Amino acid sequence: MTEPVDSGRAVVIGLGLIGGSIALGLKEQGLRVSGLDVDHSRAEEALRLGMIDAIGDDLSAELVIVCVPAAAVVAIVGEVLATEDRSPQVIVTDVCGVKMPLSGAIHDVRFIGGHPMAGSEQLGLDGARADLFVGATWVLTPSPTTDATRYAKLSSIVSKLGAMPLALDAADHDRLVAVVSHVPHLLAATLMHRAVIGAASDGALLQLAAGGFRDMTRVAAGDPAIWPELCAANAVAITATLDQVIGDLHELRDMVSAGDRSGLERFLTASSTARRALPAKQELPKSLVLLKVVVTDRPGILADVTTVASDLQVNVVDLQIAHSVEGGAGVLQLTIDEVRSQDLRRALVERGYRCTLEALA
Amino acid sequence: MTEPVDSGRAVVIGLGLIGGSIALGLKEQGLRVSGLDVDHSRAEEALRLGMIDAIGDDLSAELVIVCVPAAAVVAIVGEVLATEDRSPQVIVTDVCGVKMPLSGAIHDVRFIGGHPMAGSEQLGLDGARADLFVGATWVLTPSPTTDATRYAKLSSIVSKLGAMPLALDAADHDRLVAVVSHVPHLLAATLMHRAVIGAASDGALLQLAAGGFRDMTRVAAGDPAIWPELCAANAVAITATLDQVIGDLHELRDMVSAGDRSGLERFLTASSTARRALPAKQELPKSLVLLKVVVTDRPGILADVTTVASDLQVNVVDLQIAHSVEGGAGVLQLTIDEVRSQDLRRALVERGYRCTLEALA
Repeated sequence: MTEPVDSGRAVVIGLGLIGGSIALGLKEQGLRVSGLDVDHSRAEEALRLGMIDAIGDDLSAELVIVCVPAAAVVAIVGEVLATEDRSPQVIVTDVCGVKMPLSGAIHDVRFIGGHPMAGSEQLGLDGARADLFVGATWVLTPSPTTDATRYAKLSSIVSKLGAMPLALDAADHDRLVAVVSHVPHLLAATLMHRAVIGAASDGALLQLAAGGFRDMTRVAAGDPAIWPELCAANAVAITATLDQVIGDLHELRDMVSAGDRSGLERFLTASSTARRALPAKQELPKSLVLLKVVVTDRPGILADVTTVASDLQVNVVDLQIAHSVEGGAGVLQLTIDEVRSQDLRRALVERGYRCTLEALA
Repeated sequence: MTEPVDSGRAVVIGLGLIGGSIALGLKEQGLRVSGLDVDHSRAEEALRLGMIDAIGDDLSAELVIVCVPAAAVVAIVGEVLATEDRSPQVIVTDVCGVKMPLSGAIHDVRFIGGHPMAGSEQLGLDGARADLFVGATWVLTPSPTTDATRYAKLSSIVSKLGAMPLALDAADHDRLVAVVSHVPHLLAATLMHRAVIGAASDGALLQLAAGGFRDMTRVAAGDPAIWPELCAANAVAITATLDQVIGDLHELRDMVSAGDRSGLERFLTASSTARRALPAKQELPKSLVLLKVVVTDRPGILADVTTVASDLQVNVVDLQIAHSVEGGAGVLQLTIDEVRSQDLRRALVERGYRCTLEALA
């Protein structure tokens, strides 16, 4: 594996929970990390706590991670890319929970969107930990113009922070996080809202709040400040999912009201079975194989191959690009779990790729 | 403290997760426990596992705990009470998650409704543990005709199983559990339902399901078989709460759709603050005092005093009844947390009770 950041220098912009944790993780990897924050006192605190090595930008850095709130991310990424004299190899990425605004506004081969699916109820620098991302899924959103070399390097950086990179189309990401993150957060806040109203007229309510209620409302304790912007940025997917959930709840309400026991049992059994099938955590692959895909001049190969792998739930453990002597062509080498490797090979052959599966040397 | 079960014998009817756990807990207290189940092989397994000492009823038992599903509980409690030659001191209780059907159907001084707020995703006898109730709230539903001596004994039994007894009016209980348990369960099942539909068209969805989603859907894994009956038995409160939640979600949907950031931030900040204020677990009282209430012939004193305490969030650690020589009169002695003890005393005096607060001997 080549070193993903040859200069050994990185910049983290925005030193909150995620930015602080990334800075700590990169420093543990031996990188020299510069950091900035719109709140200069926060940058000073990060420096004092040893989370960053210096305050400010670093034009020689080959990695710039923008960890600012959703409302600011497009502007800041734009500024970073517009700064002259950056390293020609620079990779710019972000951690925003909604990807479409960036993919719509930023068309620069140096930028690849990202979203680590990790967090904490502890806010800001106090919650920052180098191991925040261990075992977490870290979405990367390659586009048809994404540079395969940069993608391979960024994927390796994410892996070294302990996370599992997962390639997704930006629009797919936004639609899916509405279901697994944004709407659940709104539901948790709604439950807590109802409990507060109930407790106001009956003090015993909160004494009845057992483990299940606590589990369901835990995410509602998270930083409320980040959510209005996330909701605004992902309004279409969130309202669509909310409409579906409201529709489901109407159906359930009618079943309860009508005493439709068999309808309720069907619905609840299906959900119970599905929840039991959800693995407690991502399983690490037992046996790895190497999938080689010939990269031609056809655009979008990197995005296509990696998102097909994600859709088939094939975990890409490592990704390398071996360039041929001619520019543009080469071989994409994906280290993947053996389990669904033949499915992925077949899917890629059907899409017209030349590819082979090999045992790992 | 007098021994709550003088005969040292108890009967548990229905040997599932809750019944099995109660049987184990009572045996740990040194009681001889007989057990029955409509599925005789289950009773045999409980006997083989040492959860019960004998299969069958025990007319000499002074405690009968009915742990059958909601659909059967009224009939079984009725049968238990109708059996001739029971111990004259017998206390009959149940563990059903909805209390109004029982309180409407059973009018017998020997019966006091109960609901331990504990559970497990493990179903049946496999999940049974003597410590399942440690730290849990165990609701008791005294009525105006409840016998104070029996209530005091049952409260003590619940405490010895590690739970904290909480007196609630049956109708209040049902209204409150709709908010903190029944509707949250339906929301968790709905989220899981949406995730299953999303995952069918996009395999990556479940890889995005991070800790928050797992927390929110955990209860959906519980036994789906018990829920249709609970929903039917508590249909009025559940549909009312679902209507309120649907109304809240409509408001949130409109705020998201309109980009109303300040409205969203207000709503989410209030929920975040409330969730952060929810104690991680019930706090044990630091200092205890004794509240003595004179019991006259006025009916409903026990139910009134204990539910006023619950409403003021006063934890009743122990409850005794000292009878005077005349029948019916006596002194109710509540061992309570000092913190809100003066509030409780004042509330009871306002309601016309004669009561005093004393330091514990």
